[in-house]
Amino acid sequence: MAARKIILDCDPGHDDAVAILLAAGNPAIDLVGITTIGGNQTLDKVTHNARTVCTIAGLVDVPLYPGCTRPLLRAPRTAGDIHGDSGMDVDGYDLPTPTVEVADGHAVDFIIDTVMAHESGEITLVPIGPLTNIALAVRKEPRIVERVKEVVLMGGGYHEANASAVAEFNIIVDPEAAKIVFNEPWQVTMVGLDLTHQALATSEIEAEVAAVGGPVADFVVALFGSFREAYRANQGFEHPPVHDPCAVAYLIDPTVVDTLRVPVDVEISGALTSGMTVADFRAPASDDCHTQVATKLDHRRFWDLVIDAVKALS
Amino acid sequence: MAARKIILDCDPGHDDAVAILLAAGNPAIDLVGITTIGGNQTLDKVTHNARTVCTIAGLVDVPLYPGCTRPLLRAPRTAGDIHGDSGMDVDGYDLPTPTVEVADGHAVDFIIDTVMAHESGEITLVPIGPLTNIALAVRKEPRIVERVKEVVLMGGGYHEANASAVAEFNIIVDPEAAKIVFNEPWQVTMVGLDLTHQALATSEIEAEVAAVGGPVADFVVALFGSFREAYRANQGFEHPPVHDPCAVAYLIDPTVVDTLRVPVDVEISGALTSGMTVADFRAPASDDCHTQVATKLDHRRFWDLVIDAVKALS
Amino acid sequence: MAARKIILDCDPGHDDAVAILLAAGNPAIDLVGITTIGGNQTLDKVTHNARTVCTIAGLVDVPLYPGCTRPLLRAPRTAGDIHGDSGMDVDGYDLPTPTVEVADGHAVDFIIDTVMAHESGEITLVPIGPLTNIALAVRKEPRIVERVKEVVLMGGGYHEANASAVAEFNIIVDPEAAKIVFNEPWQVTMVGLDLTHQALATSEIEAEVAAVGGPVADFVVALFGSFREAYRANQGFEHPPVHDPCAVAYLIDPTVVDTLRVPVDVEISGALTSGMTVADFRAPASDDCHTQVATKLDHRRFWDLVIDAVKALS
Amino acid sequence: MAARKIILDCDPGHDDAVAILLAAGNPAIDLVGITTIGGNQTLDKVTHNARTVCTIAGLVDVPLYPGCTRPLLRAPRTAGDIHGDSGMDVDGYDLPTPTVEVADGHAVDFIIDTVMAHESGEITLVPIGPLTNIALAVRKEPRIVERVKEVVLMGGGYHEANASAVAEFNIIVDPEAAKIVFNEPWQVTMVGLDLTHQALATSEIEAEVAAVGGPVADFVVALFGSFREAYRANQGFEHPPVHDPCAVAYLIDPTVVDTLRVPVDVEISGALTSGMTVADFRAPASDDCHTQVATKLDHRRFWDLVIDAVKALS
Repeated sequence: MAARKIILDCDPGHDDAVAILLAAGNPAIDLVGITTIGGNQTLDKVTHNARTVCTIAGLVDVPLYPGCTRPLLRAPRTAGDIHGDSGMDVDGYDLPTPTVEVADGHAVDFIIDTVMAHESGEITLVPIGPLTNIALAVRKEPRIVERVKEVVLMGGGYHEANASAVAEFNIIVDPEAAKIVFNEPWQVTMVGLDLTHQALATSEIEAEVAAVGGPVADFVVALFGSFREAYRANQGFEHPPVHDPCAVAYLIDPTVVDTLRVPVDVEISGALTSGMTVADFRAPASDDCHTQVATKLDHRRFWDLVIDAVKALS
Repeated sequence: MAARKIILDCDPGHDDAVAILLAAGNPAIDLVGITTIGGNQTLDKVTHNARTVCTIAGLVDVPLYPGCTRPLLRAPRTAGDIHGDSGMDVDGYDLPTPTVEVADGHAVDFIIDTVMAHESGEITLVPIGPLTNIALAVRKEPRIVERVKEVVLMGGGYHEANASAVAEFNIIVDPEAAKIVFNEPWQVTMVGLDLTHQALATSEIEAEVAAVGGPVADFVVALFGSFREAYRANQGFEHPPVHDPCAVAYLIDPTVVDTLRVPVDVEISGALTSGMTVADFRAPASDDCHTQVATKLDHRRFWDLVIDAVKALS
Repeated sequence: MAARKIILDCDPGHDDAVAILLAAGNPAIDLVGITTIGGNQTLDKVTHNARTVCTIAGLVDVPLYPGCTRPLLRAPRTAGDIHGDSGMDVDGYDLPTPTVEVADGHAVDFIIDTVMAHESGEITLVPIGPLTNIALAVRKEPRIVERVKEVVLMGGGYHEANASAVAEFNIIVDPEAAKIVFNEPWQVTMVGLDLTHQALATSEIEAEVAAVGGPVADFVVALFGSFREAYRANQGFEHPPVHDPCAVAYLIDPTVVDTLRVPVDVEISGALTSGMTVADFRAPASDDCHTQVATKLDHRRFWDLVIDAVKALS
Repeated sequence: MAARKIILDCDPGHDDAVAILLAAGNPAIDLVGITTIGGNQTLDKVTHNARTVCTIAGLVDVPLYPGCTRPLLRAPRTAGDIHGDSGMDVDGYDLPTPTVEVADGHAVDFIIDTVMAHESGEITLVPIGPLTNIALAVRKEPRIVERVKEVVLMGGGYHEANASAVAEFNIIVDPEAAKIVFNEPWQVTMVGLDLTHQALATSEIEAEVAAVGGPVADFVVALFGSFREAYRANQGFEHPPVHDPCAVAYLIDPTVVDTLRVPVDVEISGALTSGMTVADFRAPASDDCHTQVATKLDHRRFWDLVIDAVKALS
């Protein structure tokens, strides 16, 4: 089977870094390009971090395009509490000076041009940050909707939340962009907190990664360590949930992630619920339901995919 | 231990009828009064139904006060799909002409006067319909807040919903009233759909009630039958959830219902989420958290309480 | 012609005081009762002030009922910047200790009972503060709507505003109550800021009042003086607009105030516009339009009414 | 003085057509490009109409770029009641088959590239339709904000409205886009309905245009005629307000349009007020206020500008 062509739209971010490595290190994925979006930190910082990750992983041929600097309507909001001032603070690992450069052009145009230049059904969009780039692309060039194979995003949650009582960070940062993305009639898989809170980087997993050895493994171990500390201090997790690679894992092997077809929309106007991904479980989804949510992770096989990718990149 | 003095604020309604019977038939409850509220059907109809239930149960000494006819701000909305045109349609049981009359006065004043006439901490409010009466009472006489022992209400849900993707009927009918009730600093226990969807009247339970014999048991069996049919047709339940008596059961024996202390507020302005009871599970509740949610029902012991009450009233 | 029977629902307040005096001192008005509402200051303070005004005016036979302490849903908000810490700060006038007492009962019940005890079309409601009491009355006893002759309220504005870019104080304090009042099918006349900003207490007017002499005139002059200072400091008016008596003046002589029939509703959910009275001038009002707005004041004749009332009470 | 370089972003539309002619026919304006936006009709139709107007006016060298097909979040909404099924229905004039073609590229990119290719302060944006193109441009390339000389837009209103009680069509079609545009720190002049409802094409004006003679004058007379009929039928105007050229006239000669500096923001969440341009007149604007509203039109000089342009193009 041909590798899945994906564009990874990200805001590294510790877990974004792992997602990039997983996409780069698994042969089932053809990483057509990486685009960045302001989210976990400002666009400048996450773009710098993306260049760093590409440098560590030796991703010299994957074009990297910076995207939007801020949400459509809401005031910019970053997650320094989790990802630190740089957006990818790590202890005990010397991040290299990035040698990979950004491409000339805008993420929104790269997404549009890539989708339009490929056959219908070839390109999959994998946004793992706020959805501003994708929303702008679809409003600028609506024909991408029918050409994209599917959108598999990390964000939201149906019962789990982290940025408010009922909203997740990537969605609450730009709820209007998320509403645009969820309401276009393409296939959307929401890999939300309900799923990613199962993707815990336990001490055992960390030890297995460390055992691989080499700079990529060391980098991942350092990411886990810093992420663990932040999650303990801020959200009461013993081991950190590593959100973003779950979306990539689902694309590599859909059997690693159970999903349920259910209508999902985004609340943009609630006083308590703005940014909530509202899933309606009251009845079986209708045949034309184009959204599904990730429900259950095969923890062991998920981490095997990550570890295999680390090995492949070592 | 002295019986718990409660005012039952209801909109019968099949499950309201069972709640009245449970409150009337259990010695741990001192049913000080019944108030009615437009909800499952119009005020006139639910008041008529309350009189009918009191007549069947022989509740001749419990004062019954009609309350508000409509929500504070929203257009009136009833649940004819579930409770029928009368609000308490039953097949195979001849409802008697009610002989119990309504008292002279308004539910809101009865609530206020009763609370103010008792010592602080004596009266518990048990609203099992929309919260308009309680909201009006607290705005007309704010001092009831510190005198009421607690509010134990059937309504809402943290993950379950029935009237929208994320809202329950009693709350969505008058979200503003609910917001008033949840935000006063009294103790509020939300017995929501997460709990009541466990209170299924299975065929076994129905058979046990039928075995009691007599008009009250026959009435309850008839309620179950009609409720079952409505829930099968409308919400895909095989056996009907009997919501309202769960709130009363919790007061009779708190060990029948597990609860969790967690902040709860009501969304009144969302486009998709209006009427949602928003519970925040992200962290342990603070010491001054005055709200809790019902999480787990002891199904066997719950139904034993109901069956015992049916026997006591027979 | 028989005098118009009115209930004045107020939150004195400097201009409320003038409204009470005008209602008390003009033979065309039969002041059936005064009710108070938290607004310009807390309920306790405005009720005290109402007692003071009644004492000054010798209103010993007009019953005075305290009402609600706070808005339906919004956090309480007072206007200390305009009316001072007491709600009726005056310089250069020794306010007497009030000898008039409050009646036993609640404003909401007084409103309901008075309306229901009179023939249909006899009682006019004149709310000149936040509309919480009226909203509660109409929700507790919906039959008052068809019995009330009309509602003539001071509040709102169609192009003028003072509490936000597009909202007036009385409405923004309790927009939900206002929405209830404007949406019942009784006749509502909105005497808003568009009108009352024409009711300026100029130096000439103040001199004319002073020339009347006696304690009532002295009191009014003192009110003007304090009000002038507050409006200069806070809203850039050279002479203060004396809002509340305009509603009473319209009832005494409708030709003093031009009105236009136009649909009016209240915005309760806007981020910038919450509390706005939204009037629709796009087309001539339909025949069943039950709302009208005051547009133009006859300044001279308005103040003649006030001065005549001061004389009558002297 | 050098001619003002402008990009006209439009959705022709009868009055858009007049705006194009005025911009094309006045030497004070250097029409750098025309961009189109779905609004009065679908993007395809208004783009076709723009080509038609350019053909009539002989505008063969002005590049024309189609833009967005729909608003950011709201369902598309056109104004067929006013502009007809084609978006520019005219009676008694044979519209030519357009010979002017659209350029290759997207309006959003043309706007960005033109602004970035010119010196700071050279390009003025003149949006006279919904603001989706401008909003996308500013989110895709934020640096245009400091480079644009100013934004002079037709849309909104502070006291006048046409699409709801308090909203104007161009803004209500895409309130979120409008909010983005009004909240960027560039200079924004809102030429709203308060101004454009003064720009009536009276019979006298129509006669003067007709007297010019030739195809352009005939076209304008036909536009007036059809517009007049639509406005009589739909909004009760005797003579039609010709909105869009007012924005261009202000740029040609600012003394034709009085303006007032005042803060303006856009309501996006009100139930009654969504799409309202909320202007705050309560106090003099602060020095850093970057928005102003057009208040008063010099009717004679405005129409002289239009007639001169018609002559110049004849």
